[in-house]
Amino acid sequence: MADAANNPSAAALIIGDEILSGRTQDVNLNYLARFLGALGVDLLEARFVPDIEAEIVSALNALRAKHTYVFTTGGIGPTHDDITADAVAKAFGVAIDFHAEALAALAARYKPGEFNDARKRMARVPAGATLIRNSVSVAPGFQIANVFVLAGVPMIMRAMMEEVAPRLARGRPVASATVTVALAEGRLAGPLAELQKAHPGVAIGSYPFYEEGIYGASLVVRGRDKTAVEAAASAIEAMVRGMGAQPRRSG
Amino acid sequence: MADAANNPSAAALIIGDEILSGRTQDVNLNYLARFLGALGVDLLEARFVPDIEAEIVSALNALRAKHTYVFTTGGIGPTHDDITADAVAKAFGVAIDFHAEALAALAARYKPGEFNDARKRMARVPAGATLIRNSVSVAPGFQIANVFVLAGVPMIMRAMMEEVAPRLARGRPVASATVTVALAEGRLAGPLAELQKAHPGVAIGSYPFYEEGIYGASLVVRGRDKTAVEAAASAIEAMVRGMGAQPRRSG
Repeated sequence: MADAANNPSAAALIIGDEILSGRTQDVNLNYLARFLGALGVDLLEARFVPDIEAEIVSALNALRAKHTYVFTTGGIGPTHDDITADAVAKAFGVAIDFHAEALAALAARYKPGEFNDARKRMARVPAGATLIRNSVSVAPGFQIANVFVLAGVPMIMRAMMEEVAPRLARGRPVASATVTVALAEGRLAGPLAELQKAHPGVAIGSYPFYEEGIYGASLVVRGRDKTAVEAAASAIEAMVRGMGAQPRRSG
Repeated sequence: MADAANNPSAAALIIGDEILSGRTQDVNLNYLARFLGALGVDLLEARFVPDIEAEIVSALNALRAKHTYVFTTGGIGPTHDDITADAVAKAFGVAIDFHAEALAALAARYKPGEFNDARKRMARVPAGATLIRNSVSVAPGFQIANVFVLAGVPMIMRAMMEEVAPRLARGRPVASATVTVALAEGRLAGPLAELQKAHPGVAIGSYPFYEEGIYGASLVVRGRDKTAVEAAASAIEAMVRGMGAQPRRSG
C-alpha cells in the first residue's frame, strides 16, 4: 500500500511438504488474504516451509517479531508428520502438554476404544495457549500470544477463522476499484505513472492480460480512503478515454 | 524429505501486492515445485512479498545465500509498480542499465513510434545478468548468479522455465507412490508412525480427506530411491489390508 498504514499487520506461515512438492495447490493463503483484508488486517508477507521443525521454528520466530499477527496452516493432525504444535512450543520456548478441554472434546467425539494415542495427540498444545474451536472435525487449533495455529484442510481452516475473527484488532478495510481496459500495459505505463504521482494516497497496480488476441490490463486502485480511491479510478477512466479506449469500471 | 539430499535446492520468491491482497490466486509456486521436482531440484522454501523494494531485497538476499537457486516471479513489466529488476540490482549491489540485446528484441517487436520509454524499461537488467528469452511476449527475464527473475503471468513464466531448464544442475528426481485408503487418519497414525521408523530412507506424508461421508487419507511415500519407495508403499498396503480395508495404489 502506498498510503501510511496504521492497520494491524499479518503474516501467513504455510506448513507442509505437500505444498512445496507441488502435490497440493495451496488455497489457504488467498483465503486468509481476503478474510483479513475485510477486517482491515493487512497481510504483508507469507512463508512456505516444509515439515522440518527447525524451519518452522525459524520462520515463525522471524514473523511473529515483525507482525501484529501470524497465522499458520497445516501440521496439526494425528500422524507422525504433524509436527506444528511441537515446533510452535519450541519457538516460544515453552512446554507442550495435553489440554484438558481439548481432550474432553475429542473423547466425546469418538466411540469407546477409538480414542487412541494418535488422536489424543491432537489435544497437545503449548503451555499458555488458548484453543481455537473446530466446528468441522473437533480437533482444535490454538492461539499462543500473537500466533494462530490453524488446520491445513481448507474447510477446517475457514471454520477456525470464524472463531478467530472476534479476537482480532481491526483496522480500516482496504477500498478498491478496478478499471479494465483493452490497451497494452506498455501504452498505459507512462500516463499511469504520472497518475500515481498525482494520487499518492492510493496504490495503483497494473495487471496485464491477453485474451482473444487482445492485450489489456486491469488497473486496480487500492487505499484506505474510499473517496481517494474513487477519485483515482475516475482519473484513470478519463485518461483511458483520452487515449481513445473505453474503460470498464468494477469493484 | 526424510532422506539425506544431495540434490540442488531451490527457493521461490513470489512478488506482488495482487497475491497478498487476495486479488490473485498464485499458481506459479505449484508449477515451479513440479517443474523443479522433475529435474531433481528440491524446492525447499518460498516467500511471498509485496511490491516494496526493501522487502524484496531482504527476502532475496536471505534466500540466495541459503539455496542453490532462487526463482522470482512478478514485477518485470513496463508499469510503475514493476520494481523487481531494480530491487534485484540493489540486492546484488550492482548497477542496472539497458541491455543491448533486450532493447533490440523489443524494438523489433513494436511498430515505429510505439517503442516508448515504458516499454524500453523492460530491457533494463542488473549488470552481469544474462537474459532469459520470453517466447510469448518478448520482454525477457534474466539470470544473475544463482537467481532467475521470471514474469508473473503464468503462461510467460512457464515459457521462461523452458529456457532456464538447460542451465540448471540436476539431481535425482523424487520418486513417489500414493496409497489411498478409506480409513480415518486417527486409526492409521499409530501403525503408520511405526512404518515410517522402519523405512527411514523415505518420507511418508498423510493427507486426510472427507468425501461423501467417508473419512480417508492419501498416504504419500516420497524418496530418491525408487525401490525404497515401492517397498514402503507395499508395506503400507499390507498394513491397510491388515486393518480390514482395501488400499488403492497410484503414482
